[in-house]
Amino acid sequence: MTTLIKNGTVVNATGATPADVLVDGETIVALLAPGSTALGQIDADTVIDAAGKYVIPGGVDAHTHMELPFGGTNASDTFETGTRAAAWGGTTSIIDFAVQRYGERVEEGLAAWHAKADGNCAIDYGFHQIIGGVDEFSLKAMETLVDEGITSYKLFMAYPGVFYSDDAQILKAMQRAADLGLLTMMHAENGPAIDVLAEQLVSQGKTDPYFHGIARAWQMEEEATHRAIMLANLTGAPLYVVHVSAKQAVEQLAWARDKGQNVFGETCPQYLYLSLEEQLGARSDDYGAFEGAKWVCSTPLRSRAEGHQDSMWQALRTNDLQMVSTDHCPFCMKDQKELGRGDFRAIPNGIGSVEHRMDLMYQGVVTGEISLARWVELTSTTPARMFGLYGKKGVIAPGADADIVVYDPNGHTSIGYGEGKTHHMNMDHSAWEGFEIDGHVDTVISRGRVLVDGGAYLGSPGHGRYLKRGLSQYLI
Amino acid sequence: MTTLIKNGTVVNATGATPADVLVDGETIVALLAPGSTALGQIDADTVIDAAGKYVIPGGVDAHTHMELPFGGTNASDTFETGTRAAAWGGTTSIIDFAVQRYGERVEEGLAAWHAKADGNCAIDYGFHQIIGGVDEFSLKAMETLVDEGITSYKLFMAYPGVFYSDDAQILKAMQRAADLGLLTMMHAENGPAIDVLAEQLVSQGKTDPYFHGIARAWQMEEEATHRAIMLANLTGAPLYVVHVSAKQAVEQLAWARDKGQNVFGETCPQYLYLSLEEQLGARSDDYGAFEGAKWVCSTPLRSRAEGHQDSMWQALRTNDLQMVSTDHCPFCMKDQKELGRGDFRAIPNGIGSVEHRMDLMYQGVVTGEISLARWVELTSTTPARMFGLYGKKGVIAPGADADIVVYDPNGHTSIGYGEGKTHHMNMDHSAWEGFEIDGHVDTVISRGRVLVDGGAYLGSPGHGRYLKRGLSQYLI
Amino acid sequence: MTTLIKNGTVVNATGATPADVLVDGETIVALLAPGSTALGQIDADTVIDAAGKYVIPGGVDAHTHMELPFGGTNASDTFETGTRAAAWGGTTSIIDFAVQRYGERVEEGLAAWHAKADGNCAIDYGFHQIIGGVDEFSLKAMETLVDEGITSYKLFMAYPGVFYSDDAQILKAMQRAADLGLLTMMHAENGPAIDVLAEQLVSQGKTDPYFHGIARAWQMEEEATHRAIMLANLTGAPLYVVHVSAKQAVEQLAWARDKGQNVFGETCPQYLYLSLEEQLGARSDDYGAFEGAKWVCSTPLRSRAEGHQDSMWQALRTNDLQMVSTDHCPFCMKDQKELGRGDFRAIPNGIGSVEHRMDLMYQGVVTGEISLARWVELTSTTPARMFGLYGKKGVIAPGADADIVVYDPNGHTSIGYGEGKTHHMNMDHSAWEGFEIDGHVDTVISRGRVLVDGGAYLGSPGHGRYLKRGLSQYLI
Amino acid sequence: MTTLIKNGTVVNATGATPADVLVDGETIVALLAPGSTALGQIDADTVIDAAGKYVIPGGVDAHTHMELPFGGTNASDTFETGTRAAAWGGTTSIIDFAVQRYGERVEEGLAAWHAKADGNCAIDYGFHQIIGGVDEFSLKAMETLVDEGITSYKLFMAYPGVFYSDDAQILKAMQRAADLGLLTMMHAENGPAIDVLAEQLVSQGKTDPYFHGIARAWQMEEEATHRAIMLANLTGAPLYVVHVSAKQAVEQLAWARDKGQNVFGETCPQYLYLSLEEQLGARSDDYGAFEGAKWVCSTPLRSRAEGHQDSMWQALRTNDLQMVSTDHCPFCMKDQKELGRGDFRAIPNGIGSVEHRMDLMYQGVVTGEISLARWVELTSTTPARMFGLYGKKGVIAPGADADIVVYDPNGHTSIGYGEGKTHHMNMDHSAWEGFEIDGHVDTVISRGRVLVDGGAYLGSPGHGRYLKRGLSQYLI
Repeated sequence: MTTLIKNGTVVNATGATPADVLVDGETIVALLAPGSTALGQIDADTVIDAAGKYVIPGGVDAHTHMELPFGGTNASDTFETGTRAAAWGGTTSIIDFAVQRYGERVEEGLAAWHAKADGNCAIDYGFHQIIGGVDEFSLKAMETLVDEGITSYKLFMAYPGVFYSDDAQILKAMQRAADLGLLTMMHAENGPAIDVLAEQLVSQGKTDPYFHGIARAWQMEEEATHRAIMLANLTGAPLYVVHVSAKQAVEQLAWARDKGQNVFGETCPQYLYLSLEEQLGARSDDYGAFEGAKWVCSTPLRSRAEGHQDSMWQALRTNDLQMVSTDHCPFCMKDQKELGRGDFRAIPNGIGSVEHRMDLMYQGVVTGEISLARWVELTSTTPARMFGLYGKKGVIAPGADADIVVYDPNGHTSIGYGEGKTHHMNMDHSAWEGFEIDGHVDTVISRGRVLVDGGAYLGSPGHGRYLKRGLSQYLI
Repeated sequence: MTTLIKNGTVVNATGATPADVLVDGETIVALLAPGSTALGQIDADTVIDAAGKYVIPGGVDAHTHMELPFGGTNASDTFETGTRAAAWGGTTSIIDFAVQRYGERVEEGLAAWHAKADGNCAIDYGFHQIIGGVDEFSLKAMETLVDEGITSYKLFMAYPGVFYSDDAQILKAMQRAADLGLLTMMHAENGPAIDVLAEQLVSQGKTDPYFHGIARAWQMEEEATHRAIMLANLTGAPLYVVHVSAKQAVEQLAWARDKGQNVFGETCPQYLYLSLEEQLGARSDDYGAFEGAKWVCSTPLRSRAEGHQDSMWQALRTNDLQMVSTDHCPFCMKDQKELGRGDFRAIPNGIGSVEHRMDLMYQGVVTGEISLARWVELTSTTPARMFGLYGKKGVIAPGADADIVVYDPNGHTSIGYGEGKTHHMNMDHSAWEGFEIDGHVDTVISRGRVLVDGGAYLGSPGHGRYLKRGLSQYLI
Repeated sequence: MTTLIKNGTVVNATGATPADVLVDGETIVALLAPGSTALGQIDADTVIDAAGKYVIPGGVDAHTHMELPFGGTNASDTFETGTRAAAWGGTTSIIDFAVQRYGERVEEGLAAWHAKADGNCAIDYGFHQIIGGVDEFSLKAMETLVDEGITSYKLFMAYPGVFYSDDAQILKAMQRAADLGLLTMMHAENGPAIDVLAEQLVSQGKTDPYFHGIARAWQMEEEATHRAIMLANLTGAPLYVVHVSAKQAVEQLAWARDKGQNVFGETCPQYLYLSLEEQLGARSDDYGAFEGAKWVCSTPLRSRAEGHQDSMWQALRTNDLQMVSTDHCPFCMKDQKELGRGDFRAIPNGIGSVEHRMDLMYQGVVTGEISLARWVELTSTTPARMFGLYGKKGVIAPGADADIVVYDPNGHTSIGYGEGKTHHMNMDHSAWEGFEIDGHVDTVISRGRVLVDGGAYLGSPGHGRYLKRGLSQYLI
Repeated sequence: MTTLIKNGTVVNATGATPADVLVDGETIVALLAPGSTALGQIDADTVIDAAGKYVIPGGVDAHTHMELPFGGTNASDTFETGTRAAAWGGTTSIIDFAVQRYGERVEEGLAAWHAKADGNCAIDYGFHQIIGGVDEFSLKAMETLVDEGITSYKLFMAYPGVFYSDDAQILKAMQRAADLGLLTMMHAENGPAIDVLAEQLVSQGKTDPYFHGIARAWQMEEEATHRAIMLANLTGAPLYVVHVSAKQAVEQLAWARDKGQNVFGETCPQYLYLSLEEQLGARSDDYGAFEGAKWVCSTPLRSRAEGHQDSMWQALRTNDLQMVSTDHCPFCMKDQKELGRGDFRAIPNGIGSVEHRMDLMYQGVVTGEISLARWVELTSTTPARMFGLYGKKGVIAPGADADIVVYDPNGHTSIGYGEGKTHHMNMDHSAWEGFEIDGHVDTVISRGRVLVDGGAYLGSPGHGRYLKRGLSQYLI
């Protein structure tokens, strides 16, 4: 079964070039100069005409939380619904987080996540391992992760009593990670301090969603980022900071990198486009000021007046932030976000974006924030390199998995929940309602299989396979 | 005429993958997954077996000075000898510097350089334009450069009376460059101050080559780098600093980039491997302490005790320096370097390295300083992107020029002047005598033509064509 | 002849304490604990009751330009009028600038300034030496300055063709200064670049006073500051940057100090209180938009929106700026500032402030920008220490010159030109019209002689003596 | 009872001046210009001739731990022995630390410290309050501290289980402190991480005193310093970091100050003079390699090869560190330090230096590290201002307490334990054995009473009084 994607412009991380792409089965087998006669007429079972369009490696979203138990409820996308939505949006691989917490065993958590995903995914998926309880067992279990294809794990400096690790635990885990080659991912917010602030706000009657962002002050993100950097410096462990939102945190990352340390950071679309001020102003008929709950995530939205959003775009340009993930963690307003009416602390944290990342970042190309090649690098190539998938994922090249998106720069996408909009995630609202994109995901191919084409969904649960990942290919 | 390079590992800037490369005429027409049967048996007129070897885009050396008049003599490599040596070393494109000075016209300088190069080059070549005399005519002439395929020009903050521009001139040129899209290249050393120091040293009898480096203190490189950054900041002109050698200059570049400014820097192999201390200790039978003249270049070699060399490697890893050029500017000891016996100021400045850059940088892969992909990025991909050649140069991809090097990681290269050594440059010595490389340039192909293979040189003058370059593809 | 200042609060640089001050002749001979009986009844020829008032060391204004020839005219205050105005405002010492320019001899310039000042000053005065033409003669003449009591000299990176020194000249002068112990004062603006910008603006018809500030972009102050720092670093010369106005220049000073370099900076009241935006909006019946000419000074007023003023106050608190001078250089609107109608470049640069510095800075105490002790430190103690006058000036202590100001924190001062206002400078307007101060200079004593008391002026030309200054007492 | 100190040079924080000092009872009542006849002949009950000597304000040691319970034993100096030793060395005020720990009440801890000190001190003493257990009671008790004359309190980021506060506790305490005007003092080391490292070293058999310094890595001091800064930034609380020893911690302090934050730091003589390398090499007949236990303190001695000591001196010059205290916390080798034979973690932390601080810092004047005025500022004036004692302490001025030291720059002091040496502390060894000082404490006066003169000790327990301190006079 061969497919030829003709007449398009292949965009890889260093630039664009006209080229035809030949897929055989699950694999890209050739890149061909258009019009070359050296190989005679190229025949294929299927031909996709990509004239005037970009042919890019499928998106790699390295930060999703399908079915995550959080705050007494579960993230509303299952692996089935979430990966289908991802496919709709041009993302062909996700890396989700298996969870271990205090008193639990890593092996069991991982097995549970395999069970959730196995047979249900529309696209390929891998796992990071959350270690929410660093103890002798979890430290021991880290040794087996590389063999499981899990080459990165995540610690939390936030959420005391849930996922939180103290500095002694972080130090021990990083020492182990440095030995094993594991990449340490960090939720860098000072949870104990934030919880004090949050409790004080609530006790003052400041319970609206907006105060979530007030409690999670930028100082506490900056601080935790610096602390993670120094613990990494001490142990020699490479560090990857998730969902960076404060410009001062970026300054810390840049400071460490300028000294040559292996320190990386991702940001997410919400920190590029949304702001604390907009959250303060959010209103709806159903929810009034509680409407802002749809944008409750951690790290929180930041003040536009303080310039965080511009700094995030700039850092993406200067490579002080290396990639963009979604931190997809969807909750419905009804029965879920609503849990936090009267107390923002009880609002499940998270925004659903897995479907929109490729579009939202492409809009940055349209507005001149980033280049076309950088778009691919930020959303696919670097995520693949960072997390040991490159070669198979993250690039249009022979031998790579045929994870391909045909993207139309002359198309249009109206993001949102209602009719004629794009929403396919299992949520009762869209955090991105009203965003208009000057481009369109036309065709999505996963390992040679067309999942989306001409507005039709052709995928199915179980097509997606588990990705055993290698060590990071991005370390310096 | 087709050539198939089989069984090798193609290395591009983001990673390596096994792939066969099919060349038709001057162009890469296909990248093929090894063993794929989708296209049937691939036949080619010539087959090169690259098993166990790297297949990389030919080197792009963006900083050479063939036949440069300097200090009353001329750089000893002609375009013929210099490009042949480049080919021997795996470099398939150079960007040389056409020269304009006070009282001269840009158009005439450029015509003269075309005349020197035309019909003589073994490999493709482009030009930057040196504007050594910023006046109304040269400012006017800048407007025509883009059409000439010259999208970068160079100013000097050093060499008063020769190439030097003062800050008023630099400002005017940068304003024009910002309008035109030209990339400003800068020799960033405070020439007027350095000349005072040099004169004082000579008047104290400190005339040995070593004092060249003492006169050109790091403070004066750091200062000029900062000054160039601020003039660029004021005018909005992108800036590219050539031959960075001082760690404090790198700090300035990193500082500017962290703020989001379009500022770039190259370093050269001599600043990675050689040092002021070694220059001080250099002795030979023929020249005694004047032997150090072979390493007189500007910017100068820096003190290893101060850690500059380590900082250069680090900056290459962190992308605070983006690429490696040679600043190839060869002079013989006899009759050329000798001019400065008794007065280091009269030593023609320059080191010949165009032949060895790919090898010397590969050795950085062997020693763990940089990754394999970063080697290609630093020596080929980024130079091509920086200077508007990408797509044709700097990448192994269909549609690209078939500039290809087959590099053997199991080979060995003994750099040096004598028998069994690699030297092909027109010099009576090697600045790199005794360097041993754990790798070897096996085959060099330029636009489909094999120039070097199996230790034989198959190239010829005139094969190389002039490269009309586009605007920089690397700006943020 | 003895005077006893009773019941006041003596404020020195580290704090305030109730103390009586006994003056005998020209000198403070005793500080006495109020109410102490150990010395019996203290009798004095004159008793000044300072109850409820501050007794502070007389102000030291280390940057004035009386009678300075500039732009085809002369600063409008003579030493007589200027020092009288200074006395009115609580300043009892000035350090003015003797001038040497290209083709002139330092000795003659200095003699000329002595001639201007001798016999005319109401208060004590010293000189810095402007070296506006660094040549073999002026370099030689530097050797005699210390013996003349001139331990600081000034160079200009601005004003090409007038006072400008290029980097070669600066380097030579700093080398000499480092040997001699002279403090190098620097006007740090990139004059050649600024002149290009100014010429371009004028050629575009942008001739209003406002464009003076546009031409003198902050980047060119920052750049020159950095350059001066690096030349000082290279030579080991201590550096003092005059009239710092850009926050980015302060960042450079702080950066250098953090590394341990002897680098200092002054700012002036205009950079704390006035702004480019206000200059843009300035209008008068007589002058229309040219009214802004009254605020044309160099460095220029800076944008308030960019936050420079707040940064100056902050730097005064953190000691990244060490002191406040006026750069007093008054010109009348009529016949003087008017020279620049139609071309801002012809407006004589300068603001008259010598009379108001103590009041304007005290207002910073009132508004909480600085502490009471810091007020004295910034305006008297550090200027005295910086320029080798401490012990005699800058402190209320036995043995010190009896330069004393009784300042009433319950008084009020209305600065301005008209009736009931304070203006005594020889100008036809006030740059500080309308500033209201919550304090008042009640009594001013210079070497034991009351110059100002009860609103009456009791001084006379010739009382002031030339101050032979020692080496800086502030170096680290 | 009057005393006249004649013919000396009075040194205050901004400079030196010849002056006679008249003391009446406990107070300085006059500073007099030598030779002045305005007050006639000055008679006094006692005359001290200070010709050729410095007359300085008595030292203020703001960091001592008399009788501190630590590690199962008590600091070996009682208030009686410790303050006597302080007096011998020219220190006339100490600020010691009252202790509260988990489960204890602040009021009781403070009462206990009053009981220890009351009636026993040779010199005046104040208290900081250690809050080693932040809970509702201690937070409430902070409100009473200002009235008790305790305007600063100390938290520990080190010593989990002993004095440690977590970030939630620190945040709460700082919020309270910001409201109350209390200065937060911080032991800034990441205790939980350090304890992990220490446990690992011991488990590897690395039990010698040297490993104490290895465990307490500079990264963990730098990290905690940054964390304290950000918590202070968030709460608006001024911050004072005790015993800074790592150059990277100083960089953090300077970074915060450059942004205008109220952040201060002290260092101690051991971090200026002693090093980790010397500790590694320490040997004695009695103790072998355990001899290094005498230098076990926290923060630890730092590596000289890494340049920390030079950085501390530099920071004292640039005012990035503001003052020098001792962290006097003496333990005998026998029965005390010995507790840690076989496990460095059990070595009581501390060095006895209260007697030598003035001498050791004066030696910095001799060697050119600091100026004479800076010596006084670092050891007396700034400590007094920082902790609300200025006016009474920290200055030679009328109205000040007559705490005066006559210091002979032509004298000599041999520090050490044996005969003819200076040791008076209650320790069986000296951490400063062999240090030779080119100066000598001749006479020490506390509130008018001569405690030390001509090598004789004239003080007595109970002379020293409790100092109720005011709010910090050093905030910006």
